[in-house]
Amino acid sequence: MIGSIAGLLTTIAFVPQVIKILKTKDTRSIAFETCLLQVAGVFLWIIHGLVQSDTAIIMANVVTLCLTSIILVCKLLSRKHGVEVEADVLKDK
Amino acid sequence: MIGSIAGLLTTIAFVPQVIKILKTKDTRSIAFETCLLQVAGVFLWIIHGLVQSDTAIIMANVVTLCLTSIILVCKLLSRKHGVEVEADVLKDK
Repeated sequence: MIGSIAGLLTTIAFVPQVIKILKTKDTRSIAFETCLLQVAGVFLWIIHGLVQSDTAIIMANVVTLCLTSIILVCKLLSRKHGVEVEADVLKDK
Repeated sequence: MIGSIAGLLTTIAFVPQVIKILKTKDTRSIAFETCLLQVAGVFLWIIHGLVQSDTAIIMANVVTLCLTSIILVCKLLSRKHGVEVEADVLKDK
């Protein structure tokens, strides 16, 4: 039971971050390497879950993979458009 | 084996984020609710690990708890000092 709640919390934890990024388009204080490591780690958790045939691990980490991938893509896009995104953010001040 | 690597990656993933925050003092694009949910979830993972006497889960999540707590405290501090932190960040531009 505690493990399921823990898994649920660490999965849905990324939802507010995704919402905040989509609203503000600001990813400046988010570390790119953190996004990369999270996506890689969560992908491996899915492989682990498949090997162990553990549906809970698979489901939780598929959701987390989607959320962390969105954050990673937004980070890549803001890096690519570097200045504009920052300008937009500053303009909204 | 895959689970240990996955656990290692999702644990050390927070290190670049902590380093970036300590360097820039900028937590603006980080969602406070995400920090809160991560700390709560990771804390429950430790309880789960204790109940299951699973040292790997306990160790990985104790490290993650430390890292996510640093991020949460920095976020709280930057919220408390709201303007100054932003001013510092903008001043460095």
